[in-house]
Amino acid sequence: MITIYTIGGYEEVGKNMTAVEYNGEVVIVDMGIRLDRVLIHEDVNFQKMSSRDLRKLGAIPDDKAIRNKKVVAIALSHGHLDHIGAVAKLAPHYPDVPIYGTPYTIKLTKNEVRGEQYFEVKNPMYETNYGEIVQVSENLAIEFVQITHSIPQSSIVVIHTPEGAVVYACDYKFDNNNPIGEKPDYKRLREIGKEGVKVFVPESTRVSEQTKTPSEAAAKLLLEDFFLYEGMEEKGLITTTFASHIARLQELIEIANKMGRQAVLVGRSLSKYTGIAKQLGLIKMKGAKAVRSPNAVKNTLKEVSQAKENYLLIVTGHQGEPGAVLTRMANGELYNIGKEDTVVFSAGVIPNPLNIAQRYALEIKLRMRGVRLVKDLHVSGHASREDHRYLIKLLNPENIVPAHGEFRMLTHYAELAEEEGYLIGRDVFVSRNGYKVEIK
Amino acid sequence: MITIYTIGGYEEVGKNMTAVEYNGEVVIVDMGIRLDRVLIHEDVNFQKMSSRDLRKLGAIPDDKAIRNKKVVAIALSHGHLDHIGAVAKLAPHYPDVPIYGTPYTIKLTKNEVRGEQYFEVKNPMYETNYGEIVQVSENLAIEFVQITHSIPQSSIVVIHTPEGAVVYACDYKFDNNNPIGEKPDYKRLREIGKEGVKVFVPESTRVSEQTKTPSEAAAKLLLEDFFLYEGMEEKGLITTTFASHIARLQELIEIANKMGRQAVLVGRSLSKYTGIAKQLGLIKMKGAKAVRSPNAVKNTLKEVSQAKENYLLIVTGHQGEPGAVLTRMANGELYNIGKEDTVVFSAGVIPNPLNIAQRYALEIKLRMRGVRLVKDLHVSGHASREDHRYLIKLLNPENIVPAHGEFRMLTHYAELAEEEGYLIGRDVFVSRNGYKVEIK
Amino acid sequence: MITIYTIGGYEEVGKNMTAVEYNGEVVIVDMGIRLDRVLIHEDVNFQKMSSRDLRKLGAIPDDKAIRNKKVVAIALSHGHLDHIGAVAKLAPHYPDVPIYGTPYTIKLTKNEVRGEQYFEVKNPMYETNYGEIVQVSENLAIEFVQITHSIPQSSIVVIHTPEGAVVYACDYKFDNNNPIGEKPDYKRLREIGKEGVKVFVPESTRVSEQTKTPSEAAAKLLLEDFFLYEGMEEKGLITTTFASHIARLQELIEIANKMGRQAVLVGRSLSKYTGIAKQLGLIKMKGAKAVRSPNAVKNTLKEVSQAKENYLLIVTGHQGEPGAVLTRMANGELYNIGKEDTVVFSAGVIPNPLNIAQRYALEIKLRMRGVRLVKDLHVSGHASREDHRYLIKLLNPENIVPAHGEFRMLTHYAELAEEEGYLIGRDVFVSRNGYKVEIK
Amino acid sequence: MITIYTIGGYEEVGKNMTAVEYNGEVVIVDMGIRLDRVLIHEDVNFQKMSSRDLRKLGAIPDDKAIRNKKVVAIALSHGHLDHIGAVAKLAPHYPDVPIYGTPYTIKLTKNEVRGEQYFEVKNPMYETNYGEIVQVSENLAIEFVQITHSIPQSSIVVIHTPEGAVVYACDYKFDNNNPIGEKPDYKRLREIGKEGVKVFVPESTRVSEQTKTPSEAAAKLLLEDFFLYEGMEEKGLITTTFASHIARLQELIEIANKMGRQAVLVGRSLSKYTGIAKQLGLIKMKGAKAVRSPNAVKNTLKEVSQAKENYLLIVTGHQGEPGAVLTRMANGELYNIGKEDTVVFSAGVIPNPLNIAQRYALEIKLRMRGVRLVKDLHVSGHASREDHRYLIKLLNPENIVPAHGEFRMLTHYAELAEEEGYLIGRDVFVSRNGYKVEIK
Repeated sequence: MITIYTIGGYEEVGKNMTAVEYNGEVVIVDMGIRLDRVLIHEDVNFQKMSSRDLRKLGAIPDDKAIRNKKVVAIALSHGHLDHIGAVAKLAPHYPDVPIYGTPYTIKLTKNEVRGEQYFEVKNPMYETNYGEIVQVSENLAIEFVQITHSIPQSSIVVIHTPEGAVVYACDYKFDNNNPIGEKPDYKRLREIGKEGVKVFVPESTRVSEQTKTPSEAAAKLLLEDFFLYEGMEEKGLITTTFASHIARLQELIEIANKMGRQAVLVGRSLSKYTGIAKQLGLIKMKGAKAVRSPNAVKNTLKEVSQAKENYLLIVTGHQGEPGAVLTRMANGELYNIGKEDTVVFSAGVIPNPLNIAQRYALEIKLRMRGVRLVKDLHVSGHASREDHRYLIKLLNPENIVPAHGEFRMLTHYAELAEEEGYLIGRDVFVSRNGYKVEIK
Repeated sequence: MITIYTIGGYEEVGKNMTAVEYNGEVVIVDMGIRLDRVLIHEDVNFQKMSSRDLRKLGAIPDDKAIRNKKVVAIALSHGHLDHIGAVAKLAPHYPDVPIYGTPYTIKLTKNEVRGEQYFEVKNPMYETNYGEIVQVSENLAIEFVQITHSIPQSSIVVIHTPEGAVVYACDYKFDNNNPIGEKPDYKRLREIGKEGVKVFVPESTRVSEQTKTPSEAAAKLLLEDFFLYEGMEEKGLITTTFASHIARLQELIEIANKMGRQAVLVGRSLSKYTGIAKQLGLIKMKGAKAVRSPNAVKNTLKEVSQAKENYLLIVTGHQGEPGAVLTRMANGELYNIGKEDTVVFSAGVIPNPLNIAQRYALEIKLRMRGVRLVKDLHVSGHASREDHRYLIKLLNPENIVPAHGEFRMLTHYAELAEEEGYLIGRDVFVSRNGYKVEIK
Repeated sequence: MITIYTIGGYEEVGKNMTAVEYNGEVVIVDMGIRLDRVLIHEDVNFQKMSSRDLRKLGAIPDDKAIRNKKVVAIALSHGHLDHIGAVAKLAPHYPDVPIYGTPYTIKLTKNEVRGEQYFEVKNPMYETNYGEIVQVSENLAIEFVQITHSIPQSSIVVIHTPEGAVVYACDYKFDNNNPIGEKPDYKRLREIGKEGVKVFVPESTRVSEQTKTPSEAAAKLLLEDFFLYEGMEEKGLITTTFASHIARLQELIEIANKMGRQAVLVGRSLSKYTGIAKQLGLIKMKGAKAVRSPNAVKNTLKEVSQAKENYLLIVTGHQGEPGAVLTRMANGELYNIGKEDTVVFSAGVIPNPLNIAQRYALEIKLRMRGVRLVKDLHVSGHASREDHRYLIKLLNPENIVPAHGEFRMLTHYAELAEEEGYLIGRDVFVSRNGYKVEIK
Repeated sequence: MITIYTIGGYEEVGKNMTAVEYNGEVVIVDMGIRLDRVLIHEDVNFQKMSSRDLRKLGAIPDDKAIRNKKVVAIALSHGHLDHIGAVAKLAPHYPDVPIYGTPYTIKLTKNEVRGEQYFEVKNPMYETNYGEIVQVSENLAIEFVQITHSIPQSSIVVIHTPEGAVVYACDYKFDNNNPIGEKPDYKRLREIGKEGVKVFVPESTRVSEQTKTPSEAAAKLLLEDFFLYEGMEEKGLITTTFASHIARLQELIEIANKMGRQAVLVGRSLSKYTGIAKQLGLIKMKGAKAVRSPNAVKNTLKEVSQAKENYLLIVTGHQGEPGAVLTRMANGELYNIGKEDTVVFSAGVIPNPLNIAQRYALEIKLRMRGVRLVKDLHVSGHASREDHRYLIKLLNPENIVPAHGEFRMLTHYAELAEEEGYLIGRDVFVSRNGYKVEIK
């Protein structure tokens, strides 16, 4: 019997954590945070809080169902905070248990853990490459299969058990034309499908979109179509996107080079993600520079202000986060933003009332200063309904436990599964945070 | 020639201010604030700021178009802050010019002006009754016609000129069954229509609702239907509504009496509005009490916590405003709110992303504590499309200048006017903040 | 063991059919049709089609799961077509099995069966009163408990079994102020709750509305508020509502009497429902008349056209149905509808793209003729989230099987149940058409 | 003085017609139909109806304001029916007046006129190339400037007058990467801007989208990303798009060739548009075939049914139009559509309740047959807000009269113009069907 503990991410998009038990041994996949639950409380200092207090806020998963189990490994699917952000808080519950992930994921996790101020994390961490199969106990092995998403080195995590594989696919998209060359490993997915998938744990975030998610190449096209035509005639050019979206940043740097402008990345998190990516050869910063320290930011932006037409600024703040560079610019700080500037949002609005409000305030402030806004030069990193259908066909799983979504998203995934011949309660299981699904 | 200066409220719902000029003399109607423009900026202390700084934020009207005109009177239509909230900031621009309004409106304005910390307001203020016609110059007279809205003693303001009347109807609804007995003065409106209306300045906020706005009696029915049946079986009962909505508060007090519970009004603004209403005999507080000072609030809520089943709490915070009583309760302060409590929202959500976010955070916090929420026991105070059509028929105006709305609302009103035989640009004029419409 | 067969209405709002099995004996509750599945096919003549063909279209429930079971009774909860409309097609599968319902429900069912042209229905039908408990086999008895809805004599159906009651509550609202005096039988519901409810099968259509559904008295108020004030000044007055909504029709007739106009009900289905209601003393037609035959309709409307100010027309067609009276008027037939007419919609738009389109076409046509439209003078007949919560408290059931909704509605109900301490998969079961839930 | 007659398309997206008068001479631009107004009436045979009857339905523009004027030319901007569909009905009002357009536009218009059964159209028609300036009277000349849209050879129409140019830009997008090589003529637009634009008449349909419209290359990418990966594994492949969208069809034909399948275009309108495009060398049909006659359609689809894996079907019916090929397939005709088929919608849903309903019915029927649906592999052909802003900058017009939209769209365009320094009523004019704007 295989038991799936649906610990977090089964009632929200956020704080993902799932555990797989076979014969008394447990593999944990992901330990994420839920940022919007931090946002609704004022004066929360995440890095100084105990896991108990954060659980109460609903900000990190409640792992009590497996606290006393024999955990043999922790696998991290990719480096987004809703997948690795709680490692610093929860890994100490499982001392000495090794943590595995792709190199970029592990490096980001180490960075995250370093900032932690309440716990000390001593778990060993191993960078694992696509293709390796890591035996984590006599019965269990884990494998990271290459997949595409909006951060480099994402993976579909496979836990090999004597009863068949458990395949965890949160988050992914099928991108056949990714500009930085990452590709879904269709061949390996098909093989795993043939070997036998006992349980499949897919994300469900965008399962209601009845289409195939566009390739990142579409975002590149949107950006080039604007910058290399209209952009050439603009004076100040400021763009903002997800700091972890290395492919997008690479595209913007190349565009800046083509325009004869210097790309300048401003903001702490941009420096963090690109810095680690550069170490691993995942981004080429040629022609660009990144500034991080408050003083460097201040001086650089002052300089850019003098000759705006020579730069393409890439800044943090696409969701109007307080303290982010763009938010401060809109408040009249750092840079004399105004009528001669265009702000390009290469990011959607995260559909949560708190984000919507912060972004709204940001846009109003920018417009009051006469700034031109260009929005939605962006594509999603999440699979849509027809991608999900295709992955079901590739893997042909015996059982499905939809994850990574609000209850309605999980149930929409379950409806898709029924279209493909599954039946809710028989071989598709809609679970909730804190419960488990037993597969006989 | 009559000139209408469309100073504020012509690009938003908020900061209403209109001026009417005839033969070199000007009457100002309303001087309001725009709260959401205060909200998007942190650390704004409204009462300590200059009018210049507030104008820059977009929080109060920019009255430069009439600063050097001969202003003979300021008329206030009713006591909501988006109509009187900028008196303390702008009336000093017109020293000695008398201010007129119904008694409740004037008393609220005096109260507002008393809190002002930047300016000193010395304008004389006169309480005017429905029916009186006040001659404010040789040519001009003003009149307050009784109408129904969500605050007592609202009025349609009429400026009588030698060329005909200018009628200003922001805000109003036609409520034929108001529980506290206020009624629209159809007879006088019809007379004014017959005497001749040169210009009509109506609100346009809800002109897209293709119906007639329900009477306040409908809200009363919704509340009774809940409280006198299910409410009887609940333990803690907390309700929240607009502090200035005296009719609604009266209904809740009567319901508490019928339930054998004591109505307790908690929060500064509830005390302010009911206190002044009581002076004027507009509310009967029998069986109820209002608490205001921080200490009284603390002690009273502690007491109520001990025997929740004896009270019906009426508190501030329906929009999740920071610092309001309900918001503090949701944060775990003041009252041990939890599973045995029901919160009844007798108010809608103001459709602005910042309000939506605050209300959302409030509801999440209440639900995390196990509180039962009952929403939308409420009806609007604003006229809908068919009410507007009826008022056009009653007044039969020569020209219309829609007000009190975003640009799209003004244009929707203009479309309604075209259905009634008017033509945009000929006798319906869609204006913007800061411009004027000249009527020959 | 009790088995609930979730035959129809578990993937849609429509074609409701549920069966309860205890010890080899089955009671069927409701046999409804799904009108929108008839609408998407052209040239469907419902009354001439076999049950096999209608099943294929998705228009009636597929009862194969119980075709060979020992069915001992068919209970009908109320007279709406989505609950009784398939009796003519499916009852012949269970020859001689008696059919029970309240008098109005049975009379409507007999009427429906009479129009059937494919099958002959020979099942005995019995009019049952609230309070009676009908023993339908040694082990099973059925009872109809009074409840309020948008048609007279609705009931909550209770199947008493040796293991406890099965309570079926589709459709209902808690209306404490119904103008025609019907009341929810709270006392009996509470008693049944105390005796022990094994399974509860509630509707889920409006479970996402986080409020209490307004009383029908609110609709009455909206109608009076319009007709007795503005309506008095209008010339032609035409209103349209659900033909089975006897309370609403009664209100309109009384309003016409107060206005000194004659209420004239025009259209086949209005005559049908009011005719049977009149037999049972459920409606007072004093001052009103109903016309049905094509000739009578033609002549009456011609007459009314001559002196519109003397009549209040009540017609079919609120959803823009082809062939309905209002639709024909909008096409320029029957009545010279135009600028001097007001059409009052005392009905919402059924939220299905086909209805939305038909209603849209209707409104465009009416507006092109200059007709004034007043919309939404209406309240729903379905329970909202807080009504559902209250009914759970009254009944305190052991298990819940949400019904009467699309999959997302059933799951939203399940979420409500979890708020009340239930758990999906343990004691709340989300099922689909054609499956069964076994309660041990 | 220049007068702009805003004849049609100023209250809807459809029936576009504008006229420009200078010194007593008039140039008409476009004569379109409004299809949704035909749709809401049953039994309308467009080709047999008089212009008077069609005007009454609101289906064609009402040109009475210019009927007796001296019309010197009719210019057609591009070949969509909402721009040329009423030529057959209205050109006869202006006998002998020459009609100008690009070759594809004129050929489509001639084809349209040939089907007319009520009128005979005798106006001379001239194919005009980009760059030519046609002198149509002593004072007036017209010019077609190349622009990109969703049909070949679209143009921005310029009327040169002694007081400056009138520039008409409905419909257009700025597509810098169009797969079939069409390009916006930025150079000429800039020149015209420098020469002086007196009046600018832009479309406003998508002015609320705060972005730049994606290039057609994005649609190509979406299609390739699906077909060349997942599509390769599917059996039956059916796609549907706009019949006039030659670029899209070209992409699909090339994709079929890459897949080793034959592209088969089925349906009357597909044959019409591709046939004329082929004559002009605008499409390469290599590897593809088009079938049109009922018999050919029947036989071809029968054949395709036998070996679905060899074909990529391209069919009419993306909006669920009755009688279209896909609609008939969904009804079980022509082709045994079912579980082994995938339908790819390379078209959005036109946002009109009637289209929404037809498309909805189509999708339901396809799903009931087990067909896989992939939606939204499509991009719009209309300019977004930031494209509009850019065109204003290129042309720098003295006055703007927004067109091609509902009233709210025109006013949203006017708001954009105000952001760029214009003022409503001074140099931006929101007009309505049937009125005129006089430019001094």
